[in-house]
Amino acid sequence: MASETFTLHRLGVIHAPWPDKFGVPRQAGLVDATSRLELDPAVLETNALRGLETASHLWIVFVFHRLAEARWRPTVRPPRLGGNARLGVLATRSPFRPNRLGLSAVRLLGVDGLTLLLGGGDFVDGTPVVDIKPYLPWADALPDARSGWSDAPPPRRNVRFSATALTQLDRHPRCDELRTLIRDTVALDPLPAYRCASSEIHGVRILDVDVRFSREGEDFVVVELVRAVPPRPREVS
Amino acid sequence: MASETFTLHRLGVIHAPWPDKFGVPRQAGLVDATSRLELDPAVLETNALRGLETASHLWIVFVFHRLAEARWRPTVRPPRLGGNARLGVLATRSPFRPNRLGLSAVRLLGVDGLTLLLGGGDFVDGTPVVDIKPYLPWADALPDARSGWSDAPPPRRNVRFSATALTQLDRHPRCDELRTLIRDTVALDPLPAYRCASSEIHGVRILDVDVRFSREGEDFVVVELVRAVPPRPREVS
Repeated sequence: MASETFTLHRLGVIHAPWPDKFGVPRQAGLVDATSRLELDPAVLETNALRGLETASHLWIVFVFHRLAEARWRPTVRPPRLGGNARLGVLATRSPFRPNRLGLSAVRLLGVDGLTLLLGGGDFVDGTPVVDIKPYLPWADALPDARSGWSDAPPPRRNVRFSATALTQLDRHPRCDELRTLIRDTVALDPLPAYRCASSEIHGVRILDVDVRFSREGEDFVVVELVRAVPPRPREVS
Repeated sequence: MASETFTLHRLGVIHAPWPDKFGVPRQAGLVDATSRLELDPAVLETNALRGLETASHLWIVFVFHRLAEARWRPTVRPPRLGGNARLGVLATRSPFRPNRLGLSAVRLLGVDGLTLLLGGGDFVDGTPVVDIKPYLPWADALPDARSGWSDAPPPRRNVRFSATALTQLDRHPRCDELRTLIRDTVALDPLPAYRCASSEIHGVRILDVDVRFSREGEDFVVVELVRAVPPRPREVS
């Protein structure tokens, strides 16, 4: 018997600093990034947001749209557990879920017409949004909850910039924002848990830059920044 | 231009103490009710839950399935504001949303195969579930968040039971559970904000009972309990 299905409409799209899935923080609130949610005027009018500006935080319910079309599997290997232990997919926040819904609590920085500025998001650029809800602290904030295998935020590594990278950073028109984004993205160790050689140079896209970094012992070093030209065309999802 | 759409599959169904939408608490955590989520073996295997039992709380993402098919409107009148003030639907947790997704943080009381026992849910019986996620306190708990118009839990009214109601309660096979459910459901004032006559007798279905109650000043009085026979057939949603 086929399972019952439900149809969701995209309400809008998020523009975020990470053009690729690689590098996106693995939960909201970890990186002080600003994302812009553009709601679709064909679906919503500004009245639907009336009073939203009184909320300090919002839930964004979105679709993990940048996944290969492979089927989901019952178990996954969370990066937090070193990539070895298998957990049930519903015991994790993995994007490879039966229904690819994501859930993130973000700061509401501003509302301008159908555009929302969001702080602390963990969205890949182009993420489709299907719901926005005000965060209700008396119902949603459960600081004493225990999640078992993930009770604390992920550890952060030290990040150093090479002299070359610093010079390149200074030339970027959004250098302050980019510095913070690079530092926090790399500090959270975006590499898959099953990586091997530690001397390898890795690349992560942040804004319009390819950030090249490598491990040095327990730290990371940002080696150089390469302007990504031409800009990656927005993927049609 | 038609908006992009996404298809969700029902993962399971919740069995809850409220057979009707009327009476269901207006947020999770308000009533100490136990709900049972039966996941569909045609969609999920128990491996998908491996490790879930280490979480104290879960997010349940569900579909508000018991709504009339009327279109959603950009603004709604939250009961908390007395039914007078209009807010944008996305500034509220109203079920009458563009995509009818609900979001509730519940206690995980137990896991048995594909059955989850949930505490504190705000689900109408038969609610379809589309996602389960572990509650991650370091990402999800924001006790300092402010929601503007709804910063505190809803007020509770005093609830008294008539002698008749108490006798009827004592005869019920689940009298302890039923007493708590009645007291908390009625204390939260399930009546629509635009009610008029205060002496009217209202009815709310809880488990297999029609609970008749009325207002007396600021309090509520449970007048009598009437066994609902025959049981309402489960609605095909």
